[in-house]
Amino acid sequence: MENFEFYTPTKVYFGKDMHRQVGEIVKSYGYLKVMIHYGSGSVKRTGLLDEVTSSLDKSGVEYVLFGGVQPNPTLALARKGMEICEKESVEMILAVGGGSVIDSAKCIADGVGNPGKDVWKFFTKEDAPAKALPVGTILTLAASGSEMSASCVITNEEGGFKRGFNSPTHRPLFSILNPELTYTVNKFQTGCGTVDIMMHTLERYFTVSRNVDLTDRLAEGLLKSVISAGRIADQKPEDYEARATLMWAGSLSHNDLTGAGRNVFMAVHQMEHELSGMYPRIAHGAGLSALFCSWARFVCPYAAERFAQYAVRVWNCEMNFEDPMKTALAGIDATEEYFRSLGMPTSLRELGITDEKFGEMAEKCTFFGERTLPDFIDLDAPEIETIYRMAYED
Amino acid sequence: MENFEFYTPTKVYFGKDMHRQVGEIVKSYGYLKVMIHYGSGSVKRTGLLDEVTSSLDKSGVEYVLFGGVQPNPTLALARKGMEICEKESVEMILAVGGGSVIDSAKCIADGVGNPGKDVWKFFTKEDAPAKALPVGTILTLAASGSEMSASCVITNEEGGFKRGFNSPTHRPLFSILNPELTYTVNKFQTGCGTVDIMMHTLERYFTVSRNVDLTDRLAEGLLKSVISAGRIADQKPEDYEARATLMWAGSLSHNDLTGAGRNVFMAVHQMEHELSGMYPRIAHGAGLSALFCSWARFVCPYAAERFAQYAVRVWNCEMNFEDPMKTALAGIDATEEYFRSLGMPTSLRELGITDEKFGEMAEKCTFFGERTLPDFIDLDAPEIETIYRMAYED
Repeated sequence: MENFEFYTPTKVYFGKDMHRQVGEIVKSYGYLKVMIHYGSGSVKRTGLLDEVTSSLDKSGVEYVLFGGVQPNPTLALARKGMEICEKESVEMILAVGGGSVIDSAKCIADGVGNPGKDVWKFFTKEDAPAKALPVGTILTLAASGSEMSASCVITNEEGGFKRGFNSPTHRPLFSILNPELTYTVNKFQTGCGTVDIMMHTLERYFTVSRNVDLTDRLAEGLLKSVISAGRIADQKPEDYEARATLMWAGSLSHNDLTGAGRNVFMAVHQMEHELSGMYPRIAHGAGLSALFCSWARFVCPYAAERFAQYAVRVWNCEMNFEDPMKTALAGIDATEEYFRSLGMPTSLRELGITDEKFGEMAEKCTFFGERTLPDFIDLDAPEIETIYRMAYED
Repeated sequence: MENFEFYTPTKVYFGKDMHRQVGEIVKSYGYLKVMIHYGSGSVKRTGLLDEVTSSLDKSGVEYVLFGGVQPNPTLALARKGMEICEKESVEMILAVGGGSVIDSAKCIADGVGNPGKDVWKFFTKEDAPAKALPVGTILTLAASGSEMSASCVITNEEGGFKRGFNSPTHRPLFSILNPELTYTVNKFQTGCGTVDIMMHTLERYFTVSRNVDLTDRLAEGLLKSVISAGRIADQKPEDYEARATLMWAGSLSHNDLTGAGRNVFMAVHQMEHELSGMYPRIAHGAGLSALFCSWARFVCPYAAERFAQYAVRVWNCEMNFEDPMKTALAGIDATEEYFRSLGMPTSLRELGITDEKFGEMAEKCTFFGERTLPDFIDLDAPEIETIYRMAYED
């Protein structure tokens, strides 16, 4: 087990009707003016926005509205949000939506908290935020785990760069998790969310750190539970328990619990960022689903026992003691079959792209040769390109 | 799944040598004068206290020393600590020890934070603390989970009352968890710790709430990992990985993770508090070990399927589909055998007490008829007495 720090100060309010208390909750922290940040308008159609503003009104909390976040949130929109916060003297940002909205809110929060600094430099690691406006969330999509994490991913449209950075400054102060708010999430987005949640744990699980049995077992338990709930939510979108499992697992999958004691790098996420950075219409979960199994098959020979453990404990595969590699591959096959059963793509070809940009994406992924993607082996640009091609041919 | 709030703001610094950074850590929060609170002096003998004061000295943090905490920490000692904090204008309490030292520190913190109020009334629920001095910990015993929990248990020697209360005010600001500091914990205390950790999860697991699959699987994974690590630590006290597993599991077992979405009451803990309240020399873990299986056998007929799930998933028992009760009891037997293998008592008789006080303890446990112990059935005083007697005869 590696040394680690664990810090999850986000207060979670989980369950039915919880979002109706948002006014009281915001006020309990002493904030009286918020910016409600949201997406393309579904929160208006479902009536959620009205419920939120009505709760804020009741508690005497003022608000300004700022919507328009798209999947793969952009730097340009975040810069607009910073202007509004400054002009309106906003005290906290209330993100009502999924990971894109929350990440946009985090970026705005870092920008406003550090006047005079260029917020993009936080993403390129040239600078770091000293503080941020507080962020609270009302989650409407179980997927990114952004509601409890220190991470934030933004796309800079100039150059098609999608970059993430972690900072304690923007970790949400509180998150309101009402599974009922995800009943309206469609089949495809539910599948994307299920894959994203699994991947946040899988990418922590598949690392070289040894003797992390406790973290392993928590990860395996979470995965089993998500696999089952994902199937149910796919078939019965209004199953409260399945939606609740996905929502809580989404938070736990990315708050570091399933990576404690492991050196975590998340190679597939890095590869996917280049993919949806280049093709912003590709949903993050779909990109992960199309890439994971090819990455896994490429690195599996270097970690057959670990992939076998996954196969046996998560997928109930029989262990082949004579040839553990067979068990390892059976676990990857089971994962692929599961993703497909949710209607998720398991090849890049299905995403409707060509194979022309794979070289460029691989170069970008290594920051043009400045890094490799480590784990069981260090992946350099040619190897990353090979994996993109494997994922295309699959 | 029941609605819940989840809030674990304690920052954990986990791993080798972490305690040597305590000076910097305290200073990073802006505190410059601490009271180092500790137990019977083993921290002096092992040299830990010197390492702590040397780190504080280096960072320019002043300190006063206040030791003397015994197992089942007393109100009288805590009151003495409050006086010191007030007289010396202490800004934070640094608890160096196990759960008893941390609980004593929490009690002191609540007392100092609320001048003019009687701190015992927080335990009797007649009053509640508005704030508290901040508490940091350096853990030397994996057991109570107090290092990350909102709970605090104190014994008022006048009347032999042992009472616990939960409050966000005294949840530690940070906890430094270095598994190496537990190498010197002896066989008996290691066993007590392993039982206590398991019990914090088991008492959350055995409740009537339904559809909590994710929490169940996390709990089951944690238990499997603890069972294995407990065996190793019992045989090889300096096995880092086993000590690390116990230490991290101890924190996770009592920070509400393994109870999220369940209505938790912890009946066996309530019964044990009466036991060690009456006989303060009884170690908490030993008391739990002596009581659990009798409680489990008493309530098992009302929840056979749930106990069977525990038996199958945690102990790898074969499911008897024709008679689930047999599987359920096999799981309890396996638990009992495991506790015994660690040298833990599995009957009250082994604790060297008589059966004279069981009626009185049962009465106290129901607050003289003001409450029952709920879960699968509501236990009243006669039933509680029956369980004490079952545990005596075993």
